[in-house]
Amino acid sequence: MTGKKLVEKARKRAAEMLDAAGIAITPQERASIEVADFGLGDLERQGLEIVVYENNDRYCAKELVLFPGQTCPEHRHPSIAGASGKRETFRCRRGVVWLYLPGAPAERMKAKPPAGSEAHYTVRHEVELKPGAQYTLEPDTLHWFQAGPDGAIVSEFSSTSRDEADVFTDPRIRRVP
Amino acid sequence: MTGKKLVEKARKRAAEMLDAAGIAITPQERASIEVADFGLGDLERQGLEIVVYENNDRYCAKELVLFPGQTCPEHRHPSIAGASGKRETFRCRRGVVWLYLPGAPAERMKAKPPAGSEAHYTVRHEVELKPGAQYTLEPDTLHWFQAGPDGAIVSEFSSTSRDEADVFTDPRIRRVP
Repeated sequence: MTGKKLVEKARKRAAEMLDAAGIAITPQERASIEVADFGLGDLERQGLEIVVYENNDRYCAKELVLFPGQTCPEHRHPSIAGASGKRETFRCRRGVVWLYLPGAPAERMKAKPPAGSEAHYTVRHEVELKPGAQYTLEPDTLHWFQAGPDGAIVSEFSSTSRDEADVFTDPRIRRVP
Repeated sequence: MTGKKLVEKARKRAAEMLDAAGIAITPQERASIEVADFGLGDLERQGLEIVVYENNDRYCAKELVLFPGQTCPEHRHPSIAGASGKRETFRCRRGVVWLYLPGAPAERMKAKPPAGSEAHYTVRHEVELKPGAQYTLEPDTLHWFQAGPDGAIVSEFSSTSRDEADVFTDPRIRRVP
């Protein structure tokens, strides 16, 4: 499949998951769902589908869709030109998502870092988010997350989003929103 | 009914509407749904039920529940101590909500200002929000909104919420969050 076809297929799948969850989006939002493969070309395992509802100079709101087992790679939101980096709240809406942060590592992690990329998943403190549960991350905190076997939908509420400033642990990653 | 019973009844009703919409909240959130009657003692007609997901010094996210025909009275979010007032995005999730703003008044308004309080509903430019539609309000903009006949659920994404600073058109209103 060409890249364009892959993106369209992922958009369709994400839209179907949102629809099944009763989350309405407009045709324009549907057509512009961001399909992020982080330049790794391995979307099913490391990727994220994003509907940006609003991103202005004060706050941001998005819906994140993760396919079953899909992982958003480890990264952080640094300060930019002296301004504090992004603070963000993840609120699980559907499925289960495991969020990993600095701190005491889980004895038996529920998620599995993508094979071949383990070295780039360094934080192992686990927070399990099921529907209705949420977690707020302070700026510049390393984190990554993975959906459970049914995929997940996560609402993200945050300060202004500047994805191009994100710092990923995996040096191969190119984040071009 | 005592005030306490009215609040509990409204919480139950709001929680049922959220549940019917597939929006999960925790038992703690359920128990602390804010039932705002704005000091008017007329909740069914002028009131709002609110689940605050997050409110910090950078951003805020809430779920607003409106009963059928329920109206959030006209108000604005002014600057505080030189800091810009709240900017907010309303995104309709269920039902229909009519939002009124400064501008060309609707020829035939779909909402009806609550009888006896018409003088306190001064802006009449209409924006209809159905599921998936949203509108972003700049700070200090007068606005009010009313749910359609089936009630409504609206996600609010915003900068920091300081409800006690809100300025209502109706001088009888007391906003005590």
